[in-house]
Amino acid sequence: MTPRPGQEATVRDADITVRVSATADPAAVRSARLGLLLRSLRDRGPRSRGRLAEETGLTRTVATGLVDELVELGLVFCEDADRRGAGRPGVQVRLVGGAVCGVGAEVNVDHLAVVAVDLAGTVIAEARRGIDGRNLPAEGVLAELADLITDALAEARTAGTTVAAITVGVAGLVDTATQRVTLAPNLGWRDIDVAEDVRHRLAATAGLLGPVPPVRVANEATLAATAELDPADADRADMVVLYGEVGLGGAIVSGGRVAMGRHGWAGEIGHLQVDPRGRRCGCGRTGCWETVVGLRALLESATDPDDPIRDPALTLEERLATLVERARLADGRTLAALDEVGTWLGTGAAVLVNALNPGTVVLSGYYAALGEWLRPAVEARLAADVLAPRAGGTRVAVSAFGPTAAVRGGALVSLEPVLSDPTVLADLPELHGGTR
Amino acid sequence: MTPRPGQEATVRDADITVRVSATADPAAVRSARLGLLLRSLRDRGPRSRGRLAEETGLTRTVATGLVDELVELGLVFCEDADRRGAGRPGVQVRLVGGAVCGVGAEVNVDHLAVVAVDLAGTVIAEARRGIDGRNLPAEGVLAELADLITDALAEARTAGTTVAAITVGVAGLVDTATQRVTLAPNLGWRDIDVAEDVRHRLAATAGLLGPVPPVRVANEATLAATAELDPADADRADMVVLYGEVGLGGAIVSGGRVAMGRHGWAGEIGHLQVDPRGRRCGCGRTGCWETVVGLRALLESATDPDDPIRDPALTLEERLATLVERARLADGRTLAALDEVGTWLGTGAAVLVNALNPGTVVLSGYYAALGEWLRPAVEARLAADVLAPRAGGTRVAVSAFGPTAAVRGGALVSLEPVLSDPTVLADLPELHGGTR
Repeated sequence: MTPRPGQEATVRDADITVRVSATADPAAVRSARLGLLLRSLRDRGPRSRGRLAEETGLTRTVATGLVDELVELGLVFCEDADRRGAGRPGVQVRLVGGAVCGVGAEVNVDHLAVVAVDLAGTVIAEARRGIDGRNLPAEGVLAELADLITDALAEARTAGTTVAAITVGVAGLVDTATQRVTLAPNLGWRDIDVAEDVRHRLAATAGLLGPVPPVRVANEATLAATAELDPADADRADMVVLYGEVGLGGAIVSGGRVAMGRHGWAGEIGHLQVDPRGRRCGCGRTGCWETVVGLRALLESATDPDDPIRDPALTLEERLATLVERARLADGRTLAALDEVGTWLGTGAAVLVNALNPGTVVLSGYYAALGEWLRPAVEARLAADVLAPRAGGTRVAVSAFGPTAAVRGGALVSLEPVLSDPTVLADLPELHGGTR
Repeated sequence: MTPRPGQEATVRDADITVRVSATADPAAVRSARLGLLLRSLRDRGPRSRGRLAEETGLTRTVATGLVDELVELGLVFCEDADRRGAGRPGVQVRLVGGAVCGVGAEVNVDHLAVVAVDLAGTVIAEARRGIDGRNLPAEGVLAELADLITDALAEARTAGTTVAAITVGVAGLVDTATQRVTLAPNLGWRDIDVAEDVRHRLAATAGLLGPVPPVRVANEATLAATAELDPADADRADMVVLYGEVGLGGAIVSGGRVAMGRHGWAGEIGHLQVDPRGRRCGCGRTGCWETVVGLRALLESATDPDDPIRDPALTLEERLATLVERARLADGRTLAALDEVGTWLGTGAAVLVNALNPGTVVLSGYYAALGEWLRPAVEARLAADVLAPRAGGTRVAVSAFGPTAAVRGGALVSLEPVLSDPTVLADLPELHGGTR
């Protein structure tokens, strides 16, 4: 098809570019522009309609019409609403941060987590629960997860916030096309329709509050990487995110985007063989990277089987707090175990750094809490094993989110549809009777 | 800075999009549009000015002015030039394919190669020479390379073709910022200013013909990957290119672009450790991937030390022809060696496929000639070692260019400046006295 220049649909402001097909219809262009304004208000704070128009490259008339639509959707308000009609230039357009939120959830072998984050980035609900995912069947795990999500939906309702979507991160292979979890070796799951199962359970519980928001499923490390994206940091345009849990999840960011690969299976780095004479992995192979850097490996090396830290009832945070305490007290066995895990982490990371030369390797998941002790060993391995000088200039960073990175990322991903096209909000089920 | 919508500088036709900064000056916009027209004529053949305007989303007046500029630069001609003024709609705008060419050159441990490819994709000069790069000092290697390039420049001159640039691919780490070869373990090179050295030598020889075109240096596998890019093939938007030579070079394509990484060092996959009890590598480590899949490994496993195939005077093609002949005759030792190399190739490739889920793994370099025997073993390893079902949907392809992929890619890269901004042609040294 021939593009029509009159419908040139690249809309942008200085920092944000939103592109839609050059053959897009006018409604798509309008949606993209609404999204641009919304992102701009979220990222750079309240401004006058005139400045907003100028900075987004829209004419003032167009911008004013779009702002009115966003007001109608309950997503922004004008600070001096009464005099809006007079077009006073001093009137400030401001995001209604709490109008809408995204929910991120996570299924891991030893814990579940849920968080609801609104448009302004404020956490409006958060919960975690320790589980014994290896011995609990999938239905049991998902029933507990649905409980946690139901609580979060109730809290969102109380706060008067519409839930845009729910994104569930799982430590395993997710078929992005069918939205099923194909394989989660550490959970022992094969071909589980997590999204449909959770939707079903929510309809039975949260459904009492109203219709259930869309539920999607994704790989947890992919979600964790989303939380680490920062368009303002050139060192994060190419990035490797190592997400430590019982196993090891990973995600690769290339050119500012999380690389999903041709069919969405990218990021399976945990089964890189680093120790051919090593231990058997949950995947059936021997000496996979995650057998030496997963939380299980750390606990086995740092503690005895009867150590209270291994109690499955403990949350991840409780375990990590104990490890941090022991490391701070310079407990020899803990420090040696951390050094060993850090060294293996660096050994595998060097393979990815040689292949990809990322600006940053992010230690996320459980690694974040222990970053102080892991990072030196990781850096030492990169310096030794990366062919390019000075480890290719790659720096090692510790995630600011740590074990909450995946749920945070899930919440951000859940908000994406609203930021791409705020008009979807009109079609979303309202879980609350509050004002919008 | 605030973008000015009047200078919206995304120019595109149905298949090609060229973006320049939204704050670009009008000259940059004009250059990008000239490039767009040139690419469009190259990729889709001659057309009338009217259709060209329509398909590139430019007004007819603007397109006509731009076509006139391209005629002036000698890059296109109008088939009915005498009646051009009359604006007959049937007049066809046609690329002058031979107006300009790019030169690609390659330094490998056992051979040198040069090719000149013009805008239409026609090879106008080509040469290869076997060398013993391990025993010849860098100056000796580069002197031989400069000889080959000089011959290619002379041929371009005879053909009446302007040389846009010369890009030299090296099997080693290239510092893209300083344009120096930091480390080429198999050549034994450290910190060699290849571009400056070649420029110097050309000034002394080819310089007699006129000023020397710009010389750049790049990693050879990166160049080989450029030759494999195909925007029309979704399976090639995410791609891993394995470039077999004495060692193993690699390149990763993500989102349709060759991933260079933060500082340009991406693609160093040859030193992934696959066999901790294996042989010593040129890099000083043990059991690197390239020690089991490089041409040296294949020759050592397939032939005795006194086999005539190991004569350093042979070109790569001669060696490969002998191997192909033996494989066709079902020589047991040759087939076993190929199966072994293919299996190791698949073992390492599985690591990258797990991490990146590419649509295609391309067997390039020396692997291409032997693809028939290597591919089954590679596919078998991917099926066994990739966690995602059906090897993640990744297919294994054999390069159509093979050992010439890097020089071809170098020639394409050399033409890039002209395709991005055809006006650079006015500033290029003319090596010829022919008509343009």
